[in-house]
Amino acid sequence: MHTIAIVGLGLIGGSLGLDFCRLGYRVLGVARRPETVDLALERAVVHQASTDLSLVAAADVVFLCTPIDGVIAVAEQVVPYLKPSAVLTDVSSVKGRLVPALEALWPHFMGGHPMAGKAEAGLAVAESHLFQGRPYVLTPTPNTSALAVDSLSSLVDQLESHRYSCSPEDHDRAVAWISHLPVMVSSSLIQACQQESKAEILTLAQSLASSGFRDTSRVGGGVPELGTLMARYNRDALLSAIALYQRQLGQILALIEVEDWDGLHHCLAQAQTARPNYVDPVDC
Amino acid sequence: MHTIAIVGLGLIGGSLGLDFCRLGYRVLGVARRPETVDLALERAVVHQASTDLSLVAAADVVFLCTPIDGVIAVAEQVVPYLKPSAVLTDVSSVKGRLVPALEALWPHFMGGHPMAGKAEAGLAVAESHLFQGRPYVLTPTPNTSALAVDSLSSLVDQLESHRYSCSPEDHDRAVAWISHLPVMVSSSLIQACQQESKAEILTLAQSLASSGFRDTSRVGGGVPELGTLMARYNRDALLSAIALYQRQLGQILALIEVEDWDGLHHCLAQAQTARPNYVDPVDC
Repeated sequence: MHTIAIVGLGLIGGSLGLDFCRLGYRVLGVARRPETVDLALERAVVHQASTDLSLVAAADVVFLCTPIDGVIAVAEQVVPYLKPSAVLTDVSSVKGRLVPALEALWPHFMGGHPMAGKAEAGLAVAESHLFQGRPYVLTPTPNTSALAVDSLSSLVDQLESHRYSCSPEDHDRAVAWISHLPVMVSSSLIQACQQESKAEILTLAQSLASSGFRDTSRVGGGVPELGTLMARYNRDALLSAIALYQRQLGQILALIEVEDWDGLHHCLAQAQTARPNYVDPVDC
Repeated sequence: MHTIAIVGLGLIGGSLGLDFCRLGYRVLGVARRPETVDLALERAVVHQASTDLSLVAAADVVFLCTPIDGVIAVAEQVVPYLKPSAVLTDVSSVKGRLVPALEALWPHFMGGHPMAGKAEAGLAVAESHLFQGRPYVLTPTPNTSALAVDSLSSLVDQLESHRYSCSPEDHDRAVAWISHLPVMVSSSLIQACQQESKAEILTLAQSLASSGFRDTSRVGGGVPELGTLMARYNRDALLSAIALYQRQLGQILALIEVEDWDGLHHCLAQAQTARPNYVDPVDC
């Protein structure tokens, strides 16, 4: 396992390229646009780059780093070039809809999700050590080959990521809770405020909004393309999460309606107690 | 207008004391606990301090800075000592439930809400300039005297706060949107995640939670006493806000259910477009 190919040189693909170069691998990059190929070589993100997918023929491991809605199409174009022992993986943030299709295309496929991001996207902001100390979820299934598990586990450990392993379905339910549900909850907050019917109150609310509103609305104010892709590719888990969320908020509404202040206090106290399980207390 | 009394020396009362001393006023402080009186004198938060409410007899303006559920009771004890021209105000974060009762007690009362806070509470963390550049809402009614409006407007301007003026009801609706609704929305997020029935997925979700979850859940993980007081004192505006919020989230749920991705994109784009009206873009 000496040569790694990366298809799609954006933030994630480019950052993986920088790390694998640093770790001593021979790294090949494929991008759709010639300008990206030039930038990748200029920034030394990869050793060799091309717009031609046939470059992957030399690779022991191939990372598909294209946007989620293009992964399957790119995989179909990539597999004819792969050598029989090549390991294939992707970096998509949703797995259940993709993994069965991808493992049907290649015997040594296993899904992966490196959970690192930045506010900006693209190769220009790629950086080394992006994945260090961050979660990297691998999603084996009963069909996954030992070769794929061993190769990818080793690479993830070399990135010094926190490696997790679970089924594609469990992955999707977990990220629905902590990543996709927050986007819908937060976006709805902004949209609800906008429904205020009295113009003076809306203007006043906008003037008075401060750090609490800023934090709660942050992920809901992100690019709509991302939220839409989350919902498209993780529809079922997200629908269940929203339904459970609505029940929870409905319970708070009911407690306020009947003025059960002890009940409301108990409810809010449970949330306060639970939060440190999700969020590092030093970093709250 | 030379002498200002502050009843209740916590974060807000103490910080007002520091500012008014700095601005050249004579400042008197009343606290319930002798230790607070000692600390206030030691820190030079006020010129004179006592546990005895009769101290307010010398004041031209009196700020009631006790917790929201004690304001009316304290006001009843304060008014017998006030000189006829004294102006009375409070600093509570909810106004509609308090202002009618307080203005019935004193002809020169006007409600106020300085919107500055810190993670910690208490006199020990009081600081000067806490209100500078921050909103300070005054809530006059048709009953409010010109003396109260003039005196308090002038003091707020000297604090270099952004001064807003509106009815108690408009204030409460505005803060329901940007302060109280976010707490319930954010708390419900934590509680909903905790409903995950599969233990491995819950553990995984807790491990994978990152900055997006941290921000969206922050105000929901705060002290339950505060959220309960918000709901108790701003019940009606908060109930309306939650109901409108639920309708908004229900619309997102419906779009995902019928797989109307263009509709969902449009919906999320509206939130993205609206957010900069609430949040300074440099500070997002």
